[in-house]
Amino acid sequence: MSGEMFGDEVDIKARLRAAEVMYKKFHRLISDVIKGRPPKLEIPKRTLSNTIFDPERGILVIGEEKLEREFLNVGESRRFMQTLLMASIIYQSLIENEYPTIRDLYYKGKHTIVYRDYSGRKREENTWDEQKESDSVIQDIEVYTGLFREDMLILSKEKGKVVGNMRIRSGGDVIDLSKLGHGAYAIEPTPDLIEFLDVDAEFVLVVEKDAVFQQLHRAGFWKKYKALLVTGSGQPDRATRRFVRRLHEELKLPVYIITDSDPYGWYIYSVYKVGSITLSYESERLATPKAKFLGVQMTDIFGYRGKKPYLSEAERKKFMIKATDKDIKRAKELLNYSWIGKNRRWNVEIRLFLKHLVKLEIEAIASKGLKFFAYQYIPEKIETGDWID
Amino acid sequence: MSGEMFGDEVDIKARLRAAEVMYKKFHRLISDVIKGRPPKLEIPKRTLSNTIFDPERGILVIGEEKLEREFLNVGESRRFMQTLLMASIIYQSLIENEYPTIRDLYYKGKHTIVYRDYSGRKREENTWDEQKESDSVIQDIEVYTGLFREDMLILSKEKGKVVGNMRIRSGGDVIDLSKLGHGAYAIEPTPDLIEFLDVDAEFVLVVEKDAVFQQLHRAGFWKKYKALLVTGSGQPDRATRRFVRRLHEELKLPVYIITDSDPYGWYIYSVYKVGSITLSYESERLATPKAKFLGVQMTDIFGYRGKKPYLSEAERKKFMIKATDKDIKRAKELLNYSWIGKNRRWNVEIRLFLKHLVKLEIEAIASKGLKFFAYQYIPEKIETGDWID
Repeated sequence: MSGEMFGDEVDIKARLRAAEVMYKKFHRLISDVIKGRPPKLEIPKRTLSNTIFDPERGILVIGEEKLEREFLNVGESRRFMQTLLMASIIYQSLIENEYPTIRDLYYKGKHTIVYRDYSGRKREENTWDEQKESDSVIQDIEVYTGLFREDMLILSKEKGKVVGNMRIRSGGDVIDLSKLGHGAYAIEPTPDLIEFLDVDAEFVLVVEKDAVFQQLHRAGFWKKYKALLVTGSGQPDRATRRFVRRLHEELKLPVYIITDSDPYGWYIYSVYKVGSITLSYESERLATPKAKFLGVQMTDIFGYRGKKPYLSEAERKKFMIKATDKDIKRAKELLNYSWIGKNRRWNVEIRLFLKHLVKLEIEAIASKGLKFFAYQYIPEKIETGDWID
Repeated sequence: MSGEMFGDEVDIKARLRAAEVMYKKFHRLISDVIKGRPPKLEIPKRTLSNTIFDPERGILVIGEEKLEREFLNVGESRRFMQTLLMASIIYQSLIENEYPTIRDLYYKGKHTIVYRDYSGRKREENTWDEQKESDSVIQDIEVYTGLFREDMLILSKEKGKVVGNMRIRSGGDVIDLSKLGHGAYAIEPTPDLIEFLDVDAEFVLVVEKDAVFQQLHRAGFWKKYKALLVTGSGQPDRATRRFVRRLHEELKLPVYIITDSDPYGWYIYSVYKVGSITLSYESERLATPKAKFLGVQMTDIFGYRGKKPYLSEAERKKFMIKATDKDIKRAKELLNYSWIGKNRRWNVEIRLFLKHLVKLEIEAIASKGLKFFAYQYIPEKIETGDWID
């Protein structure tokens, strides 16, 4: 590797692994040329029509359809060249010990190609104009190589945090996630490089909102109930989702999720559980299909059949926020997702929402007192199994 | 204190301190009543006209003007009662061991008062409708008591992160900020409760963007250059600003800030340095008036007089983003701030911007290679004093 070395051994190993995969995957093109075959890439299609919900595994996956990108095809050559340009930049970054972001990769590859067309006229064409374009090329490379961008040491902005009775190893350091005072551990952009050392926890609690995470942390929730407490601070990023998935898969811990009781919160839960619809190829490693929706449930607020509501009528009046047209539209869309529409309890949730046309925040419960929220509401719901699967 | 105890000793002490101040400040009203005087609050005005830039201290401060809130004045009694309602909720939270957010406080106080007017007609009035209203009441209580909401154990969402050669104590734990692997320490909502134990660093580097923080962290920047590396992830929250200020004030470390080279980035720098215009009373504790703007500077890109640009013309062409009308408007507004308009180098910056009408991201420099960015650009600028004060 050229240049001054930085990054620890963990990173260097990850680099070599990714560089090797890339080399093998793209070296085929050279064989094509040598053998006189037109070079061609076969890439799994990332279209909606090739996005399939696998009911057995409970996640969104990419289907069997593939697209071809041939160099000697006028309609495909631009994208073919973009893919090779990006692959070479990423490969270069790997062996030169760089840690690019997707924004960097966009900039690195952006330039103007000057050429003469068949009539001899001088023409100009940009490699790409918008980052949207280069991001899409990176996604093609991910599905083509089977490497995630994190595997290629591409970094990004991170929002995820964790505390709990657990020790991990990251970049050569051992970190005790139970000894962070009032602060928390900010999850790294490459969560697959974390090593789980030992854990003394019985479940994972993921809260949508960072402020609620702060409250539960301060109330000592994770100590009292042996939990690993995680927040993705709104719509979770890839690293947070991967981290939660690994906690579930490798440590066999149940994962409970708490969001606002509204279509936006439900969608956040759905992203943790089955993955994002537009990026289904990620789900295989990022989704936690067995994640349970603990609350806030509409039935917590309004009650349902045998279930007594947690809030009195006067209390809930205080917390109810009128649903907007957009909320209503989103709620109906959610019913179209088979993993929601075919689930009896989700139907109850969404129908209660559509009946009352109100939404409620986590704070509706937390405002009854942090002790009520942390020491009664959450443990009671876990104990009695009052979640939606 | 009632209820089950939680929170560590640090928090309990902070509660008692805040409760005592609140008790003293509001107890006066009872004396007023006992002495037959109409109860009245005198609160420093938080208006723009009472916001003053103190050139000596280099921060925005609240002026001498005060407003009166009298109970027996029809125009003031609503706000008077709102203030007392909120103060009593906060006081209750303090002694009942709660950790409310400002959202919780809004909910806790929100209710409808039913009363009969002078003609005997039944009327209804809400304590407050929007959170904007209750937030403003909290701000009044802050300036009236001299307590920050953090002092009153009011929590909030946090985005700040730090790594570096430093050990701190928080909530009874000792945390080594140099042993966090690829992750980082997520700063707590109450940074005044952090105790600085020992530090082996020569300066503080604050980067606007979390992704750039990740890159510099991974490149071992803080190890090599003995820095404390901080990010506020965009517009910094109060805790991040207070934390940076304490690093500067108590550890006597110079603070350098890196943002995008555009009006939005400049404003972020300005918030770290002098405070936010709309909340000037915070500045006294949150602002770091000696924070230096390290870059990305327009002169880094275009050069200026003796200064050679870091980017060639071909390179900068790749990175330049056309300024929008909004950018231009904001840039001109910034020139009206005396701490910018009267600063020769800021004038050069903004005039270069208005001449070329382009902006550049930090990535413009980082894309030349992380080694260039971390091992040449930043250290060289610090060494040669190429910053704006």
